[in-house]
Amino acid sequence: MRQVAAAHRPPSRADVSAATGLTRATVSALVDELIVGRLLTEVDPLPRSGAGRPATGLVLADDGPAGLGLEINVDYLAACVVDLTGAVRHRAVLRADQRPDAPERVLARLARLAQTVTTAPEVAGLSLAGAAVAVPGLVTRAGTVRLAPNLGWQDIDIPTVLSTLPELAGAPLTVDNEANLAALGELHARSDDLTDFVYVSGEIGVGAGIVIDGQLFRGARGWSGELGHMAVRPDGPACRCGAQGCLEQYAGQEALLRAAGRGGSGGSAATALRMVEGQATAGDPAVHRALAEAATALGVVLAGVVNLLDVQTVVLGGIYAPLARWLAPGVSAEISRRVLTAGWSPVTVRESVLGAEAAVTGAAGSVVRAVRDHPAYWLGSR
Amino acid sequence: MRQVAAAHRPPSRADVSAATGLTRATVSALVDELIVGRLLTEVDPLPRSGAGRPATGLVLADDGPAGLGLEINVDYLAACVVDLTGAVRHRAVLRADQRPDAPERVLARLARLAQTVTTAPEVAGLSLAGAAVAVPGLVTRAGTVRLAPNLGWQDIDIPTVLSTLPELAGAPLTVDNEANLAALGELHARSDDLTDFVYVSGEIGVGAGIVIDGQLFRGARGWSGELGHMAVRPDGPACRCGAQGCLEQYAGQEALLRAAGRGGSGGSAATALRMVEGQATAGDPAVHRALAEAATALGVVLAGVVNLLDVQTVVLGGIYAPLARWLAPGVSAEISRRVLTAGWSPVTVRESVLGAEAAVTGAAGSVVRAVRDHPAYWLGSR
Repeated sequence: MRQVAAAHRPPSRADVSAATGLTRATVSALVDELIVGRLLTEVDPLPRSGAGRPATGLVLADDGPAGLGLEINVDYLAACVVDLTGAVRHRAVLRADQRPDAPERVLARLARLAQTVTTAPEVAGLSLAGAAVAVPGLVTRAGTVRLAPNLGWQDIDIPTVLSTLPELAGAPLTVDNEANLAALGELHARSDDLTDFVYVSGEIGVGAGIVIDGQLFRGARGWSGELGHMAVRPDGPACRCGAQGCLEQYAGQEALLRAAGRGGSGGSAATALRMVEGQATAGDPAVHRALAEAATALGVVLAGVVNLLDVQTVVLGGIYAPLARWLAPGVSAEISRRVLTAGWSPVTVRESVLGAEAAVTGAAGSVVRAVRDHPAYWLGSR
Repeated sequence: MRQVAAAHRPPSRADVSAATGLTRATVSALVDELIVGRLLTEVDPLPRSGAGRPATGLVLADDGPAGLGLEINVDYLAACVVDLTGAVRHRAVLRADQRPDAPERVLARLARLAQTVTTAPEVAGLSLAGAAVAVPGLVTRAGTVRLAPNLGWQDIDIPTVLSTLPELAGAPLTVDNEANLAALGELHARSDDLTDFVYVSGEIGVGAGIVIDGQLFRGARGWSGELGHMAVRPDGPACRCGAQGCLEQYAGQEALLRAAGRGGSGGSAATALRMVEGQATAGDPAVHRALAEAATALGVVLAGVVNLLDVQTVVLGGIYAPLARWLAPGVSAEISRRVLTAGWSPVTVRESVLGAEAAVTGAAGSVVRAVRDHPAYWLGSR
C-alpha cells in the first residue's frame, strides 16, 4: 500500500491494479476498505489526456490514524503528533532540567505534555494509533530503561509507569533509544535514497543511530551506538559514565557551551545554544574556536566509526544540526585525514533534515510507519 | 547436507530420512550421488541395540574436494589445503618481508608456495575446488586490492595476475580481507555457539572481522573493520596511512616488538615474537610492561567498538593469539572501564581457536564451506 499511495502523482485504482496485477474489482474492494478505515482518501480527479472518465486519485489520509511521539531528554521533554502522511500536526517542548526529579515525576510531566498535544485543536479528528518514547539511554526490548547515565536513570520500566497515568492509558506504547528513533526519522524523512549512514545525536549525551541498507543496526542486545563514550583521549577529562576522555566531554552540549563561554550560566541551554549560533554567524572567533575543537573531537571518533563500519555518510543531528555549518568542515577534515578509503571515496557530512527535533518526530513517525507497513493490524484493531 | 553429516554421531540413511521427511528411497538416491561425487563416505556400521542389520554411518569425505587457502601478509606468505571435513591437510609458510618486491613478484612467489602444498603427498587424491586469498587491505568484490597500506599495494588485480601463472591456472579464485577470512574461520572452527564477536587480527597491520548473528558484517562496500586506523591518541605517532595516533602505532606487530626491545634487529619477526612470548612466560618485567601498554591501547579502541556495536565477545587472533594470556587482562580492564553496559553484561576477551594461522585456514575453509553449502555446484562442475 505504501509504495503506491506515497508516490508523487496520486495513483488511481487502475494504477494500483496495473502495478500489482490484481483485478480492478479486487483493488476496488481493498481500496474501499482502506478508505473506510481512514487510511486512504480520494482526491479530485486527475486531468486526463485520453478518452473516458477522469480517474480518482488515492492519497494517504490525513484524518485517520496518528502517532504520538514523546521524548525524554536531560534538559527538555517533547511531544508531537504525526499523521499518516508523515506531517507533524502539533508539537510541544517543555524546557527544564529533568535530573533533579525522580523518574516517576518526569514521566507524569511527560504524560501531561502528551495530553496537551493530543487534545490540541490541530489534531482534532485524528485517532491515536500508539505512542513511542525516545530516551537518551540503553533500552531493553520490553521498554525498560536499563541505563541513562546523563539522566541518572537505571532500570525504569517506562511502559508500566506510563500505563498507570490516565493521560496515556490504553495507547500501545514502545520505547527506544533517542538516536535510534532520530535515525529512523531521518531515513524516512529524506527524499533522496540515502540508506547507509550514521546519525549523530548531539544533546547533553551524544548518541548514534546506525542505518545500514535501510535498516537500523541495533547490535546484539539493542545497545549499539554509544558514540558519546568512545574515547577521544584515553586520559582526558572524567566522564559521568566513570571513564575518561569520552567524546561527550569534548563535544556534548555542556562541553560545547562551556568552551563557547556559555556554560553554567544557569539560564536555559536552548537560549545559550541560540546565542552560540548567533555569535558563530556574527563571526565571533572564540565561538568559532570552540566549535572547531568540538568538531575535531567528533571527527576523530567518527573517522574511527567510518573505518570500522564503512559508511559513506554522517548526519549531524540534535544540537549539531543548527551548528552543522561550522561543525561539518572540522568533522570532514578529520575523516579525510584518518579514513583509509577517504582518498578515493569521500565521506559526506551533512545536517539532519529533521533538525533538533529528529528524535520526537522519528518516534511519532515510527508509529505511523507501523500502521502504513501493516494496515491490517490497524483495520483489525478498530 | 551439512547439518546432518557434520553431526557428532555419524547418521545413517534412516536418520537422514527421519530428519528431513524424505522417503528412504529418495535419501538413498541422493546419498549415493554424494558418495559418487566424493562429498560423503560410508563408515563402519554403528553398534546397534535393537534388532535388524546395523546401519551404515555417513560422514563428510576426506578424500574429495579440498580448498586451497593463500595468505599474503607483510612479512610472510602462507598456503594451506583443507579437506571437506575442515581438517588442515598440509600447510606452508614462507617468512620474508614482502615489501621490497613488486606485487607481481610476490604473487609469483605465492603461486610457487601454493604449488608446494597442492603437490604435497598429504593432499594426494584430493581435488581442488578452488582457492581463496587473504590480503591485509581493502579488497573490491571483484578481488582487486584497492589499498593495502602496509604492503604499499594499490589497485592490484590479484585474480587476473594469478590466473596467468601456470601453478594456479584454472582454479576458481576469490580474494578477501585477511581479518574477514580469519573471522569466518573462527566462526566455523568453534564448537560453541558464538555468533556475535569481533575478531581482532594482529599482524604488522591490525584489522577486525565483525561477525553479527553468524554473518560477516562487511559494511557498505566491503571495507569495514579497519581497526588499526582507529585513533588511540589523535596527536600520537605518525602512521603509514598518513594520519596520527592509529592503533597500529601502539599495538601493531612492529610497535609491540619495538616496545619489548626486539624492534629493528633485522632478524625474523616470528623469531622475535617467540622470544617475546618466552620472556613473558619467564616474567620479564619490561616485556610485561610492553604487552600491558599494547593491551591498553587495544582495549581503548575495542571499548569504543563494543560501545558502538554492542558485541559481547572479542577474539584475539594473529600475533595476539599466542600472547593472549598477557594481553587479555589489559584489554578487559579498559573495556570494563569504558563500556557503558559492562557493569551488568561483561564482555569476554578470548584467544582465537585457530591461533596465528586463522586467516589462511579461514581462506581454505571458505572454499570447502561453499562446497558443503552448495553441493550441487560441485557435483555439476565435475
